[in-house]
Amino acid sequence: MAKLVLIRHGQSEWNLSNQFTGWHDVDLSEKGVEEAKAAGKKLKEAGIQFDQAYTSVLTRAIKTLHYALEEADQLWIPETKTWRLNERHYGALQGLNKKETAEKYGDEQVHIWRRSYDVLPPLLDADDPESAAQDRRYADLDPRIIPGGENLKVTLERVIPFWEDHIAPDLLAGKNVIIAAHGNSLRALTKYIENISDADIMNLEMATGEPVVYDFDDKLKVTNKEKLGK
Amino acid sequence: MAKLVLIRHGQSEWNLSNQFTGWHDVDLSEKGVEEAKAAGKKLKEAGIQFDQAYTSVLTRAIKTLHYALEEADQLWIPETKTWRLNERHYGALQGLNKKETAEKYGDEQVHIWRRSYDVLPPLLDADDPESAAQDRRYADLDPRIIPGGENLKVTLERVIPFWEDHIAPDLLAGKNVIIAAHGNSLRALTKYIENISDADIMNLEMATGEPVVYDFDDKLKVTNKEKLGK
Repeated sequence: MAKLVLIRHGQSEWNLSNQFTGWHDVDLSEKGVEEAKAAGKKLKEAGIQFDQAYTSVLTRAIKTLHYALEEADQLWIPETKTWRLNERHYGALQGLNKKETAEKYGDEQVHIWRRSYDVLPPLLDADDPESAAQDRRYADLDPRIIPGGENLKVTLERVIPFWEDHIAPDLLAGKNVIIAAHGNSLRALTKYIENISDADIMNLEMATGEPVVYDFDDKLKVTNKEKLGK
Repeated sequence: MAKLVLIRHGQSEWNLSNQFTGWHDVDLSEKGVEEAKAAGKKLKEAGIQFDQAYTSVLTRAIKTLHYALEEADQLWIPETKTWRLNERHYGALQGLNKKETAEKYGDEQVHIWRRSYDVLPPLLDADDPESAAQDRRYADLDPRIIPGGENLKVTLERVIPFWEDHIAPDLLAGKNVIIAAHGNSLRALTKYIENISDADIMNLEMATGEPVVYDFDDKLKVTNKEKLGK
């Protein structure tokens, strides 16, 4: 039956500068590029032949996908980008330095924003230049669904329709699928695939650039999970 | 109304080694990468905002597209790859050195294979390891349409359905489209768009990495053509 591979993008420039990123479109750092290529080498060694690729509309995930597929000699496979696989939107925290934010609001508050399942960050106004409402790539979306900030619960609620409409049908058709995305959109997928509780999912940390390979049976039950370690 | 940008991929490794390439999947050379990035800078300067990208299933065109879009800050736009935009298939000549081929068959014969509109090259058998019939990326194609070798006429006949089904509808819907492809698939498109004769089209040489920008009216008549020179 079909395989699903999840890859979390490697280090970005704002990981380096310790800023909240969310939907802000930053590039991979040099280390992030190397992580993506290393992931592709693992996929090549594992001999997985993909039929379909999905990624977000954010450059760091798209480039991770491209570098990995190129290393695996499969840059030619069909690729679809979707906002539904974007990172969790970090609201008004986007662009702020994490350390300075902790000094201003306190460690505990920042910990809650980062690690609670259903607490929203401070929201961004739609007329803020940082808002996705100002970004041409989201121009086709109903303005009501453009987030001003998300928690993991909201993230999951917009990720899962993409699973239902695209990823699951591909897997049921026997296609091998690769997804390059972000810490929290992949956390949402993992929660859904492995049926992890709200309480436990926030402790799940997916390593960057380390492909996670799922095998499914014809009822979409996981029959095997394997990490292709660095 | 809508804009269409055509970009011919930059130098490949087999351009460097002077081999017939066709559908053989070779990488860009370092110079080819630089040409693609330079094309992207031109697009950024021109301020063109794309809605849709198309490319072939060959790495050198796909990478040209990605480098160009990244430079233009538009790597996130939807992208579709299709064999219909592939380079002309060079049949049994693929992989041969052009100079050695000329020594073996004579300059005139090689000139005819390269420059005639409707003479086919020597064909490749479907069971040849070099045949596209052996390549997983063409596994969904009716075996009868996998070429053993193409002239420009045959190339045009398989490019134009993609124009009819995808590119033209996009342009009529007011979308700006970018296509990164190959000398002969772009020659076929140009012939069709500009209504160039069979005799004249073989003299058309599109510069690598130099975006050609067409403006269309709402009947798909060309209202302007501009080359974004290097």
